[in-house]
Order: sequence, then structure tokens, then C-alpha cells
Amino acid sequence: MTLQLRAQPLTAAAFAPFGEVIEAEHQHQFHINDGKALRYHDIARAEALGDDARIAISLVDVEPYALPLAVTLMEKHPRGSQAFIPLDGQPFLILVAPRGPAPAPEAIRAFVSNGRQGVNYHTDTWHHPVVSLQDKQRFIIVDRIGQGDNCDLHHLQPGLLEVMLD
Amino acid sequence: MTLQLRAQPLTAAAFAPFGEVIEAEHQHQFHINDGKALRYHDIARAEALGDDARIAISLVDVEPYALPLAVTLMEKHPRGSQAFIPLDGQPFLILVAPRGPAPAPEAIRAFVSNGRQGVNYHTDTWHHPVVSLQDKQRFIIVDRIGQGDNCDLHHLQPGLLEVMLD
Repeated sequence: MTLQLRAQPLTAAAFAPFGEVIEAEHQHQFHINDGKALRYHDIARAEALGDDARIAISLVDVEPYALPLAVTLMEKHPRGSQAFIPLDGQPFLILVAPRGPAPAPEAIRAFVSNGRQGVNYHTDTWHHPVVSLQDKQRFIIVDRIGQGDNCDLHHLQPGLLEVMLD
Repeated sequence: MTLQLRAQPLTAAAFAPFGEVIEAEHQHQFHINDGKALRYHDIARAEALGDDARIAISLVDVEPYALPLAVTLMEKHPRGSQAFIPLDGQPFLILVAPRGPAPAPEAIRAFVSNGRQGVNYHTDTWHHPVVSLQDKQRFIIVDRIGQGDNCDLHHLQPGLLEVMLD
């Protein structure tokens, strides 16, 4: 029997156990540059564990997935955070599960970004690969680069979980 | 006598002495997520010097400046890099000068981003506050947060330098 999960609108409160929502709303903000600019400050913390590790900026182009999404893989990065920020303004799908052992399908949560919201997964937090919906989308990635294995995979049996929009 | 500087198109080669251009072109790239995504890897390195320092993600909304731009301030951050990545796809202006003593007007270089290109200023590299051109624009910032003074300012006498588009 397939568990069917409906993605909820992404909010900072609902996403807090898994990471930060990168958006201007509800942030600590102040003017800089003689008032010409308004900074929304310290929205998400990038973490890179390990002596030789560092944070880098990358880009990624993601092909669209078909809905309902058949969930067969979750992953986590035990040595660092990972942020995805959309550059094309299109909604995308985010699946997460709490830190700890490989998640049961019932533990997975699904959110949909409004296209202006990015996300930053906390270190060692389970998530699905980023899911574009309608078109190929480009994202900024801010994550760790360094020595040591930094990707744990959890394969789910096909047919256990599918995700759709609400 | 006012020095008049024309902004050149932003290219990785021309910008290399000052930092990295954050764009997909000419990057080390590989497929991830079973071929669903193409990652442009390790485009820019975020640096945060100091024991208690870290890298964070912020946002900034920047009001447009009038052209020609009268340059009266350059700044640098001796303890960390600073990246600006545009979210609205609009061209913006970037002024930089080499590391070292406060730059003479003749040492300042001006570039214009095509609206898909971001920049990452190397640690301690002189730059002008980010300059939107036509409309208010939003940028992602990736920079250092931590103890210790991390902003050196250099005020230029008004009328020494103005920048226009080519």
C-alpha cells in the first residue's frame, strides 16, 4: 500500500526542525550603504565540519520530475549543511526527515517553495535530492567541500511513498 | 578633473585578480542524482578568518543608483570573502581594486554583470557597495559573520571618478 503525502507550503516554523528557509520575511534586517540597501542578516548558517573543510558556492541545473513523485531515495550529509536557493523563481519540492536513523516513509515531510524561498538543510538531516516541478531550474548551492565521506544514502522500496502537490 | 570610467562586460578572466565570477559557463561540471541534475562545482570559495568566524547566507535589497555613478566610497573586508548573486536577473555594476593600500581612482576597475552572473570578492579586496541599475534588486550574500572588525572604508573626494556603462 502506497503512502500518499501532500506537500505543504514552505514556512520557517514548519521547516525549523530541518533547517532554515532562506527568504526576506521575518528576518533581522538593517540598512547599509548609506540607506541604499536593506540587508536581511544571517538567515542561514553554513557549516563545514572537519579540519580541512570549507564552504563553497556552486550551481546546479535540475530537470523536472513527474508528479506524483515516487520517493526511492533520501540522503544526508553528516559533515555539513547544504543550501539550495532558486534562481528562476519557480516553485520546487522539498522532502525532509529528522536526523537519526534512516527514516520510515511516515517520518518524511514534504514542502513546496513559492519560488522565492530557498532552504538550508542542517548538517546530517535527511532530505530528497532537489525536485524541480515544471521546467529545468537553476539553483545556487552553498555547501561543504573537504575530505571524508559526506553523503549517506537511504534507498526506499518503490511503491512505499509518493508525493503530490496539495 | 573627473576621471571617467566605462564598465566592461564581466568575465572570469578579467575579474580573476579580484575574485570569482559565479556563473555556469566554463566550470567543472558533473551529473548527480541519477542524471537529473548537472552540478557546476566549487565555483567560488567562501572564506571566514578567525577562530570564531563562520559563513552565513543573507539577502539584500539594493535601490538603483543614478548613472554616471559618482564614486565616493570603496570598502574591503580583511577577514573574509563576500559574494553577491542576483536573484532578479538584472544587470548590475561592480567596482573593484587590487588588495593593498587604498586605491587611487586610476586603479579602480568597473564591470557590468549580465544579470545571471554573481561575484565573489576575495578577502581584503577593495570593492564598491553593490550597485543596482534600473530597479531595486535582490541579491544573495554569502559572507563572514564573526568577531573583530571586518570592514575598512576608503572615502574618495567627490568629483574624482565617475563610472558609466559602455
